[in-house]
Amino acid sequence: MKNIAILGATGSIGRSTLQVAERFNRRFRVVGLAAGRNIRLLHKQIEKFKPKIVSAEKEKEADELKRLCKDLAVKIVFGERGAEEVARFEENDIVVSAITGIKGLRPTLAAVKAGKRVALANKESMVAAGPLIQDEARNSGSEIIPVDSEHNGIFQCLMRESRENIRKIILTASGGPFFHTPLEEMKNKTLEEALEHPRWKMGEKVTIDSATLMNKGLELIEARWLFGVPAQQLDILIHPQSIVHSLVEMKDGSVLALLSPTDMKIPILFALTYPEREEALLPSLNLSQVGVLEFYKADAEKFPLLGLARHALEEGQSVPVVLNASNEVAVEAFRDRKIRFLDIYTIVAEIIENHRKREVTSLEDIFDVDRETRQRSMNLLKQRY
Amino acid sequence: MKNIAILGATGSIGRSTLQVAERFNRRFRVVGLAAGRNIRLLHKQIEKFKPKIVSAEKEKEADELKRLCKDLAVKIVFGERGAEEVARFEENDIVVSAITGIKGLRPTLAAVKAGKRVALANKESMVAAGPLIQDEARNSGSEIIPVDSEHNGIFQCLMRESRENIRKIILTASGGPFFHTPLEEMKNKTLEEALEHPRWKMGEKVTIDSATLMNKGLELIEARWLFGVPAQQLDILIHPQSIVHSLVEMKDGSVLALLSPTDMKIPILFALTYPEREEALLPSLNLSQVGVLEFYKADAEKFPLLGLARHALEEGQSVPVVLNASNEVAVEAFRDRKIRFLDIYTIVAEIIENHRKREVTSLEDIFDVDRETRQRSMNLLKQRY
Repeated sequence: MKNIAILGATGSIGRSTLQVAERFNRRFRVVGLAAGRNIRLLHKQIEKFKPKIVSAEKEKEADELKRLCKDLAVKIVFGERGAEEVARFEENDIVVSAITGIKGLRPTLAAVKAGKRVALANKESMVAAGPLIQDEARNSGSEIIPVDSEHNGIFQCLMRESRENIRKIILTASGGPFFHTPLEEMKNKTLEEALEHPRWKMGEKVTIDSATLMNKGLELIEARWLFGVPAQQLDILIHPQSIVHSLVEMKDGSVLALLSPTDMKIPILFALTYPEREEALLPSLNLSQVGVLEFYKADAEKFPLLGLARHALEEGQSVPVVLNASNEVAVEAFRDRKIRFLDIYTIVAEIIENHRKREVTSLEDIFDVDRETRQRSMNLLKQRY
Repeated sequence: MKNIAILGATGSIGRSTLQVAERFNRRFRVVGLAAGRNIRLLHKQIEKFKPKIVSAEKEKEADELKRLCKDLAVKIVFGERGAEEVARFEENDIVVSAITGIKGLRPTLAAVKAGKRVALANKESMVAAGPLIQDEARNSGSEIIPVDSEHNGIFQCLMRESRENIRKIILTASGGPFFHTPLEEMKNKTLEEALEHPRWKMGEKVTIDSATLMNKGLELIEARWLFGVPAQQLDILIHPQSIVHSLVEMKDGSVLALLSPTDMKIPILFALTYPEREEALLPSLNLSQVGVLEFYKADAEKFPLLGLARHALEEGQSVPVVLNASNEVAVEAFRDRKIRFLDIYTIVAEIIENHRKREVTSLEDIFDVDRETRQRSMNLLKQRY
């Protein structure tokens, strides 16, 4: 029996993880949950899974939760510190890190420092603080198993390969809802259209990042640190069917690939049970029914954020932090209908262009750059839009 | 430095293996060769690679070879015994078993018994004598690494996995030259048309077996014994591009696949270097250039030999031996233009229908069934055609 804690319990990955925990309840016990403001759902989850510690986003929500759970033996905490407390909770074995955005970094790092297995779905942690997290993991013995389908696929392909055998790692991208949209129509794309992802049901932030392909850009940087491979060995390929999640080309020309139906419960279950596997009872991938798998180069002109991400991947240091922070602010503005779809790129590009690269060696450095970038991005938004 | 011997040196796999050995001559030394009647080519190979022992098919060819090689320090032997002597030659580390047909069985078994690593390209050995070969390999510590691209792919996918995690193993088939041919036109297909394989350049026997899909049927049976999985976990899928060679579905729903360009030097190199990998210097697989990968169910009506192979796979014991032997005779008759394309099936079906399954526990049992089947097949041919 393994004890698990879920950071981002009410989000898409969090809910899928709880479904997996419920299905395999002889194998997993949910002992901790951290979530944001969806107190109604969080309360239901507490009643069902009886965790020992729960964190809400703010004190107000924590108080409400305490009232709702007054008959349950659960410790209620709040804020980033609360999420960190859940992450390092002594009885945990596995922490599912599924808070979206840079907010997930401190709790993820807390889990890593405490030596937990981390099932990582928060890509921003690795993007902003990859080397730091890997250092801490080496120190504590924490195992990081990626949950993102692409990285989970790479992990499975690489399980018994040594790094020096890798020629190239390729992450696939569905191409998002605008893959077939002509360049000149991109500027008119609405929030509703950006949220219509053709393959995966995900949170709003990541769905918009999929429409700009920034999601894939962040994943490239994440892969850089997760697997310790240099930028020039990483590439992406558009694959609209989202059946092949990633490919690893070995130096002898063999290419291992990981395929699965588009259901996040598959990589979640893998990350929880590794190195074992569990009978998933999901329908098998039926390739003759799928029929055709297509692969295309990414259109750099139509998806310029991908080029910026590649730049950040190659530059490293503070640049990925700036990329991520300016993109988070810009996507938020797009979700609030303050800017148009292509403005996301304009903002991120201008912020990166005016950033002077510097070293980031500590969490403080990273959050300094993050804060500064958010401020600059917000100022730019105010001036222009 | 590893010493290698090649059984079937002048065939397609043999020649590719020698290219690999030449390219990696700091890693591999060719110490043994066995071939058939292509003495001219064999002589050239001897001059170039300076093996210590060489076997030709018959005494006549051996004598000619002795004359040609009188200035070289090479022992010349002949026949099946000669091939066996090459296989178990003391200085060998690795035997590439690439004789086509049941003729490859005894030399393969000799290599296995001598505890050599066997890079196996002769599928008939496993089809006819799988349990026997695996028993001997367990006794001698011989490692069997498959060279066939499909089985090599499965091997690579399974390196990381325990058998109980497998849900299904799928071998792909290009569909051969007649994949798009309507059923009613199949009977008119000529030898020349059957030899026009769309993807792979291979020997004639295996090319014709690819046109009937018997090749894939034999490969299913081979996989049964190579990987120790039951018949119901094995399946095939038509994939005209021949880029994905095989897929292994794990019980948690993850599917590992092995892709590569269609060049046999890739699996040959793998089988020689495993568990290491070597820089192949071949062009990388370019999926965006390939563009589309298609997958179809196999058409059982158009390719009835596949159904017969499935039957033999499920029945086991003497039935796969009969399947293989009757098919060898029928394909030979087709190559000699004595029968038409669809007659291959008619003959194999009738021979299998009239065979009474029996246990085969020794090499003698297997060759008894083989001989008897060949005789019956030849009689049938004489009566009918």
